[in-house]
Amino acid sequence: MDAPTSDLGERPIARCNVLGAVPFSEDHDFLNRPYLTESHRKTLDLVRMWMIAAGMGVRLDPLGNLIGRYEGSQVNAPALLIGSHIDTVRDGGRYDGALGVMLGIECVDQLNRAGGRLPFAIEVIAFGDEEGSRFPASMLCSRGVAQALGPEVLDLEDAEGMSLRQALMDFGLDPTEIAKAARKPGEVFAYVEAHIEQGPVLEAMNLALGAVTGIAAQLRMKARFIGEAGHAGTSPMGLRKDAIAAAAAGVLAIEEICSAGEPDLRGTVGRFMPKTSAYNVIAGEVEVGIDLRAATRAVRDTAAEQIQARLMDICDARGVDLEFSIVQDLQDTPCDERMVRLMSDAIEATGLEPFTLVSGAGHDGMALKTLCPVAMLFIRCERGVSHNADEAVAAGDVALAVRALVDFVERLAMDAGFDTLRETACA
Amino acid sequence: MDAPTSDLGERPIARCNVLGAVPFSEDHDFLNRPYLTESHRKTLDLVRMWMIAAGMGVRLDPLGNLIGRYEGSQVNAPALLIGSHIDTVRDGGRYDGALGVMLGIECVDQLNRAGGRLPFAIEVIAFGDEEGSRFPASMLCSRGVAQALGPEVLDLEDAEGMSLRQALMDFGLDPTEIAKAARKPGEVFAYVEAHIEQGPVLEAMNLALGAVTGIAAQLRMKARFIGEAGHAGTSPMGLRKDAIAAAAAGVLAIEEICSAGEPDLRGTVGRFMPKTSAYNVIAGEVEVGIDLRAATRAVRDTAAEQIQARLMDICDARGVDLEFSIVQDLQDTPCDERMVRLMSDAIEATGLEPFTLVSGAGHDGMALKTLCPVAMLFIRCERGVSHNADEAVAAGDVALAVRALVDFVERLAMDAGFDTLRETACA
Repeated sequence: MDAPTSDLGERPIARCNVLGAVPFSEDHDFLNRPYLTESHRKTLDLVRMWMIAAGMGVRLDPLGNLIGRYEGSQVNAPALLIGSHIDTVRDGGRYDGALGVMLGIECVDQLNRAGGRLPFAIEVIAFGDEEGSRFPASMLCSRGVAQALGPEVLDLEDAEGMSLRQALMDFGLDPTEIAKAARKPGEVFAYVEAHIEQGPVLEAMNLALGAVTGIAAQLRMKARFIGEAGHAGTSPMGLRKDAIAAAAAGVLAIEEICSAGEPDLRGTVGRFMPKTSAYNVIAGEVEVGIDLRAATRAVRDTAAEQIQARLMDICDARGVDLEFSIVQDLQDTPCDERMVRLMSDAIEATGLEPFTLVSGAGHDGMALKTLCPVAMLFIRCERGVSHNADEAVAAGDVALAVRALVDFVERLAMDAGFDTLRETACA
Repeated sequence: MDAPTSDLGERPIARCNVLGAVPFSEDHDFLNRPYLTESHRKTLDLVRMWMIAAGMGVRLDPLGNLIGRYEGSQVNAPALLIGSHIDTVRDGGRYDGALGVMLGIECVDQLNRAGGRLPFAIEVIAFGDEEGSRFPASMLCSRGVAQALGPEVLDLEDAEGMSLRQALMDFGLDPTEIAKAARKPGEVFAYVEAHIEQGPVLEAMNLALGAVTGIAAQLRMKARFIGEAGHAGTSPMGLRKDAIAAAAAGVLAIEEICSAGEPDLRGTVGRFMPKTSAYNVIAGEVEVGIDLRAATRAVRDTAAEQIQARLMDICDARGVDLEFSIVQDLQDTPCDERMVRLMSDAIEATGLEPFTLVSGAGHDGMALKTLCPVAMLFIRCERGVSHNADEAVAAGDVALAVRALVDFVERLAMDAGFDTLRETACA
């Protein structure tokens, strides 16, 4: 831990960069590493070597999750799971997921080189799928670790019509064994994930790291604005029921409500789909997709009610009909308070200002929460860009993340919080 | 002209209804009568019989326009052209175009039964194409009557890749003759078209008919809002450059500017096309199509300048880039003032309040304007609906249109305006 700061950060970045191209990507022109593909296999072969070099024993679980274990002072001690996902979206970035795995390895490497053993084991896990990168289900691998997956998931098919069952077999795995990927609560007492922020908050605050207090509650809603199609040239402005104009007013109302709300409240219209698309036709119908997130369901749901009321007012005033429906409702995943505090202390110990924030994006921790308490460390990324070749992190920031993670693990061992967490996990 | 009002209107409507289904449509389930198709041929065979029954001699010109001629008191007298188009859009209405042709025939029938001959001939023309119903060019047939089409149009191809050249041959026409469809100015001294309004103004005014003062100037513009794509969950509201939100503000600004302008000013955003369409992605780019129309270019262009300035302000405030371009610029087509006055008088003579309005939609008169002075009569249609199976007109309104049209022709003969118009046409 006395290595120069930049060196500490350069190796995890260099490793992510190596994994950012063929043969660790299915495509030459962009990074694409879906679950259970040849590029996934090649990635696991390399990551396995890095895990072994860091002092871990390595195994592949029945879902293709790669797990490196660094034993504690006693054999079979419960494990702190440090992990993230190794798959990418199509045309993804090099650090989303992969950096968290590399940071776990780096953390163990530091502990191993210092020669210390902890009262618990550390397992570094590289989840095969978080992004839903191949099959139409996200966080398949972390869900399978948190609780036994039923055999029905084996019928999931990828875009080419290949089943998960077949893909597992082609990967050399036994589909009948997938339920065994689930960990028993006694084996794992906590889960920690380091991840790039994928947002601009840390950069705006001029901070390298942040402790995550929880993963936001999400609500996806669909609003259909049903006006009346008309001729752009013949309908006077006052006699129109323009669905695009009504939906546009709705977009601005959503923006206004969410800007005026709690800082962790976010409302986005990323889908705006008119039924017609012609210069000379007044739109008769528009479907709008609304994504609402907040640290708590209460804040999110209050905003949802305000939005619905405002959209109804807008439509009433314009003689436009409104249909409203819920598409997806994910509850919030609060991080373990004790671990958030330890992470915040660990950040402060690196010389940074301690800072906590909510994760607006979903992460494997949402799945792991059903198994054990969860914590996350966010690392500043350039302009908040993610899911994109432009994804970038600074070596200095990554070095601080390694130091914070090691410090967090040591604090966890000293804090005796371990026993409390173990009880929480077993409850 | 002493026939009961409703009877006068029922025949043109009944004829349009007959033409509204197979074999006069290519499709069983909806009306679809593209240029130079079997349904077009069948339509011409029937319309030809109706023209002959009304006392006209009939010919087909080299573009497939059907022309019925009712001679004046002297052979070879210049002709008043009364016409409209006989093609329809896919899934079109029964009256858009066809009603104007039927009204021309009805008008001649009235004159013929009364036994009167005028100092000019009347030619009723059924243009083969106005809608661009088969080839990617609208008003092909009226443009070909107004001035000689060059041979390059013969290379136009329909959706199946068939050339206009081949389609004309298959229809029994000689493609090398198309330039001969152009009329000499001395042959035709004026053009009159009756058409459903395709808009809600007459209905809102509770009036059956209106004299058209001109066809609006059109301007189509493309605005690209270039913000920054981002993650819906991780980007705080204040740090976004949301292209959908910026474009939405633009839509409302356009609506506001055009609502506050002259009554004939119309601004429509009928195209709103985000580059991405996902719940969890803040849109990085949106293309918006703006259609602006007004009776005069001056009004239209002032609005265009205001819109451009407002969109720039919106984008500046949001840190979003704006690209603006002109897609189409059609100048206004003023109707002949003398004819507008005669049409207005003719409407008043039916017992209606005289009323003039601007045509926001384009019509064959835009093409004919280069040949001779132009006038139009608008007929109220239900809820302004057009290009749609729901298109509807009342028999009483159509009867009034027949009477107004006959009265207009008689006023034209009495007014001695004929000579002036002839001079205008020959100029």
